[in-house]
Amino acid sequence: MKLATALLLLALSGSTLARQQPGAEAALVAYPEGYRNWVHVKSALISPAHKSYATIGGFQHIYANAEAMTGYRTRVFPEGSIVVFDWLEMQNTDGAFTEGARRQVDVMVRDSRGFASSGGWGFQRFVKDSKTERASTPTPQQCFACHDSLKKDGLVLSSYRP
Amino acid sequence: MKLATALLLLALSGSTLARQQPGAEAALVAYPEGYRNWVHVKSALISPAHKSYATIGGFQHIYANAEAMTGYRTRVFPEGSIVVFDWLEMQNTDGAFTEGARRQVDVMVRDSRGFASSGGWGFQRFVKDSKTERASTPTPQQCFACHDSLKKDGLVLSSYRP
Repeated sequence: MKLATALLLLALSGSTLARQQPGAEAALVAYPEGYRNWVHVKSALISPAHKSYATIGGFQHIYANAEAMTGYRTRVFPEGSIVVFDWLEMQNTDGAFTEGARRQVDVMVRDSRGFASSGGWGFQRFVKDSKTERASTPTPQQCFACHDSLKKDGLVLSSYRP
Repeated sequence: MKLATALLLLALSGSTLARQQPGAEAALVAYPEGYRNWVHVKSALISPAHKSYATIGGFQHIYANAEAMTGYRTRVFPEGSIVVFDWLEMQNTDGAFTEGARRQVDVMVRDSRGFASSGGWGFQRFVKDSKTERASTPTPQQCFACHDSLKKDGLVLSSYRP
């Protein structure tokens, strides 16, 4: 359950880890315009039966741009790869779940020089549907630390589901 | 819960409705090659708490080609529109659900002349991961009958989730 573990740690990191140190920030990651037209990599769902449903319950969809899709095939992600983790709340009608409001949009951008201090990837969480409001936690360095601790063959934790 | 209702009826139709009459078949709908690269319209999930989990449980993802995306914007679906309904089983780990094996791939193709007898749409279910094995039920006419009974502004029952 690598993905589920990652989801949980990602959510918990916002409340349990220390805030980023002043002056440690790298370049800002831009909002991933148009990502809803990119390839849908895979999905997961945190259901009402999960212990962390209140904070991370709902649908999680992963999208990748063309460069990142090359990465999913080869596990070497070229410069410019962008992976988006789209978090949505859910509605439950007698066990049939449908998508609700957006919780947040998490972004990973491959830029070896711009984000050398975080493994060559820039990380950012955007709040709900906002394209400009960046979450205060987790910080990009917290995102990186968690991905780095979970990686098996790179900082991108997911695999493409055919 | 229009989508959930449609899911249930679509699944039930395979076992409860009569088989298609000989000689009533229209042209065959082709397998939607490359649909996993198309736009992801929306998703739903039938959870273990749902009464029909055994037969339709898991993730349901909808994908649309470029023509169909025009249709989702305008609710007028141009010729060549293709909508794919991708059904996947699921695994449940303490309430965290992940995607499993493919149950079936349902396809709708807009072709007013080729499928005049079913509202200008061709319908087809493909079995599991097969690109050639067509499900015996529901038949295309059964698919049409159910969509036709549920329609509010057309035979495409879903809306695009931004």
